[in-house]
Amino acid sequence: MAVDLEQALQARKARHATFEGLHYHLFSDDCPDVPRGTAVFDGQVVYGYPRIGRILALNPALAEQFAGPFWMEEKVDGYNVRITRVQDRAVALTRGGFICPFTTDRLSDLMDLSVFDSEPDLVVCGEVAGPDNPYLESSAPFVAADVQLFVFDFMRRNQAEFLPHGHKHALLERFGLPSVQDFGRFVPDDLDAIRTILRDLNGQMREGVVFKEDGPGGRRAKYVTSNSSISDIRTTAYSILELPPEYFISRILRLVLFLDEQRLGRPNVLDERLGAAFMDGLAEALRQFHTERKVYHTFRCRFRERRNAQHMVSHLKRAATRHVHLSQRSLRREGDYWVLEFDRVYPTLNGLLQQLLSGGLMFD
Amino acid sequence: MAVDLEQALQARKARHATFEGLHYHLFSDDCPDVPRGTAVFDGQVVYGYPRIGRILALNPALAEQFAGPFWMEEKVDGYNVRITRVQDRAVALTRGGFICPFTTDRLSDLMDLSVFDSEPDLVVCGEVAGPDNPYLESSAPFVAADVQLFVFDFMRRNQAEFLPHGHKHALLERFGLPSVQDFGRFVPDDLDAIRTILRDLNGQMREGVVFKEDGPGGRRAKYVTSNSSISDIRTTAYSILELPPEYFISRILRLVLFLDEQRLGRPNVLDERLGAAFMDGLAEALRQFHTERKVYHTFRCRFRERRNAQHMVSHLKRAATRHVHLSQRSLRREGDYWVLEFDRVYPTLNGLLQQLLSGGLMFD
Repeated sequence: MAVDLEQALQARKARHATFEGLHYHLFSDDCPDVPRGTAVFDGQVVYGYPRIGRILALNPALAEQFAGPFWMEEKVDGYNVRITRVQDRAVALTRGGFICPFTTDRLSDLMDLSVFDSEPDLVVCGEVAGPDNPYLESSAPFVAADVQLFVFDFMRRNQAEFLPHGHKHALLERFGLPSVQDFGRFVPDDLDAIRTILRDLNGQMREGVVFKEDGPGGRRAKYVTSNSSISDIRTTAYSILELPPEYFISRILRLVLFLDEQRLGRPNVLDERLGAAFMDGLAEALRQFHTERKVYHTFRCRFRERRNAQHMVSHLKRAATRHVHLSQRSLRREGDYWVLEFDRVYPTLNGLLQQLLSGGLMFD
Repeated sequence: MAVDLEQALQARKARHATFEGLHYHLFSDDCPDVPRGTAVFDGQVVYGYPRIGRILALNPALAEQFAGPFWMEEKVDGYNVRITRVQDRAVALTRGGFICPFTTDRLSDLMDLSVFDSEPDLVVCGEVAGPDNPYLESSAPFVAADVQLFVFDFMRRNQAEFLPHGHKHALLERFGLPSVQDFGRFVPDDLDAIRTILRDLNGQMREGVVFKEDGPGGRRAKYVTSNSSISDIRTTAYSILELPPEYFISRILRLVLFLDEQRLGRPNVLDERLGAAFMDGLAEALRQFHTERKVYHTFRCRFRERRNAQHMVSHLKRAATRHVHLSQRSLRREGDYWVLEFDRVYPTLNGLLQQLLSGGLMFD
C-alpha cells in the first residue's frame, strides 16, 4: 500500500470513523498521491474520486485539453458516491470519504450487488440523483421520485486509476448496472455535433457533460449548460450569505459564455429566469420568515432500516455549521420504508431578515 | 468651537488637506459629536452631512419612526455635496469632507452664488446628479446631460442642525436655488398617498424619497424604489467581486419588499430586468476583455478651469485602490470647457476573466 496513513493521521489530514461496527480511516485533506476522500479499510484503499476541471468555452478549450479522441458522457446533477464491498457488506462512500448511511441503506434498491461476487475488489463510481436525497435541493430532471444511481466509472481497490472505457461498458452490460448516458466518441473538431447535444441537454434542463480521454491517466474536463448555472443560483439562495461573490459571478459568466458558444444571443427569457433564480428563493425565505420566523428547507428521504435514518441524522448534525443548522421533523413508517423528514435551517439569512424587517432604521 | 480637532488629529481620525492654497482639516472618521466628513477652515466648522437610516417597508416602519407629521422629498441619484464660502471663494465638499475639484469648478453653473453675499455662513446641502460626473456610473433619469444640483438642506457653519423646513423654502425661493421635489407634508396614516407617489417615481425610474420630521433633531428616513435597487445592481457589476454578498441580497430583498408593499405581485418583466442587471455588466466586461484585454468604465466630465481637471485626476488617483485603478484618457478644450475623460479599470474582475477564459481547466 502506497498510502502513508500514519503520517496523514499525525498531520491531521486523516481521521478515524466508524459505521455500524465497521472501523475505517478517511483522508480529509489532499496528501501526496492520495486525494481527499480516500478511505482505508483494513489496509484496503478506496481512492478518492479525483476532481474534474471545468472548461468554460468548448472552443478553444477542447482542442487545448485533448490532443486526440475522447468520450462524452452526461454529467448528472446529484451527489458523488463510490460503492464497494468491505467485510462482506456493500457500503457507499461520500466524496469526502465517509460512509453515507442513506446511500448504503438503499444500495440494494440502486444496483445489483451481485457484481461484487464476481468482482470483489471493484469500486463503483457514480452519481445518486433524485428529489428524495438528503444532501441537495436540486435534482436531475429525469428522476421523478426517490433516488437513482448513475454509474460513470469503475476503479479497483488499491488502485487510483479508472478501468478503460471498453472494460467499463462490458461490466455495465454484464451486470445490468444503471449508467449515465454515453454520447459517444468525438475529436476536438466535432464541435458542431457536441454543441448540438449540449443545446438539447440545456433545453431539457440537464446539467452538462464530462469529456474523458480513454486509458490510464486520460484527461478529463466538465462543461455545463446555461440552465444548470441558473439552477445553481436558484438552489443556493438560502446560503447566499455564506458564498463568495465569485460563486455567482462565475455562474453568470458560464451562462453568458454558453449563449455565446451556442450563438443563442441573449433571449429575454433567460434574463427573466436568472432574475427569478435570485428572487424566488429570497421571496420564499421572506414568506417563511413572516409566517414561521425561521428560514429553512425541508428534505425528505426514505430508508429500509430505521437505525440508518438515525445514523444519517447524526452524520448531518456533525456536519452542520454555525451557518446551517439541522432539525429533524419526523421519522415514520411508510410501507416497506422509514421516511425521514428534516429541515436545514439558515440562521445567517434569518438574522439578516430579522434585522432588515424590524421596522427600525438600517444604516448601510 | 465644540470640535476637538487636535485630539482627532492625534487619533488619526482627522487629517490636513489643501486645495489651491486653501488649507483645511477633515474628519475621516466619526468622533464624539463630530460626524465623518466634517471639515474645518480656520476654526470654522462645516459639519458632516449625517447618514440617513433606511426603512425597507413603509408599513409598519413609518408609524414606528414618526410620531407626527413629516415632509416627503425626492431622493436623487447623485453624490452628496456641501457648498459654502470660505476666504471669499465658494467650495464644494464631498461626503468625506474633501474639497471636490470638479464640483467646486462648476459651482457657478450649478447655483446662484450670490446667496453667500447675504448669508455668508450658509452651508448648502444637495445632490449633484447627471451623466457627466466623475464619481457614479448611474444618474438621475431626469438629468439628460452634464450635471445639475438639487438642494435639499441648509446648515450654518459651526452648527450641526439643519434650518427648519419653512426657512429652507424661503431661502430656496428667494435665491432661485434648484431643489429636490417636495411632495408635501404627511402623517404615517397617509400610506396610500405615499405609496401612489412612490409607484409613480418607480415607473419613472427615479430613486426614492427621504422622510423628514420638521424641527431641530427631527428624525429622518429614506426609502427607495425597486427600480433603484435594480439600477444599483446594474451599475456595480464591475466591482461585484469587491462587494459583500449582502450588497446584492439586501437590494433583492428591498425589491421584493417594494413589490409586496405596492401589491404589485411579481411581474415577469421585473425578473427579466433583475437578470439583465446582472448579465449586462458582465457581458459588457467580457466584450471589453475580448477586444481590449481590460475591463473598465469610461467617465467624462467638463471643467471651466484646466487645472481643476488636473486636481480632480490627482484626487481620484489618491482615492484609487488595488481593486480600482485610474487611467486618464484625454483632456481637451470643447467650447468654454475642458473635457476630461478617464477610465476606472477593474483589475480583480480582469484577473478573474483571464483565469476563466484561458482555455485551461478551472477547479472550483
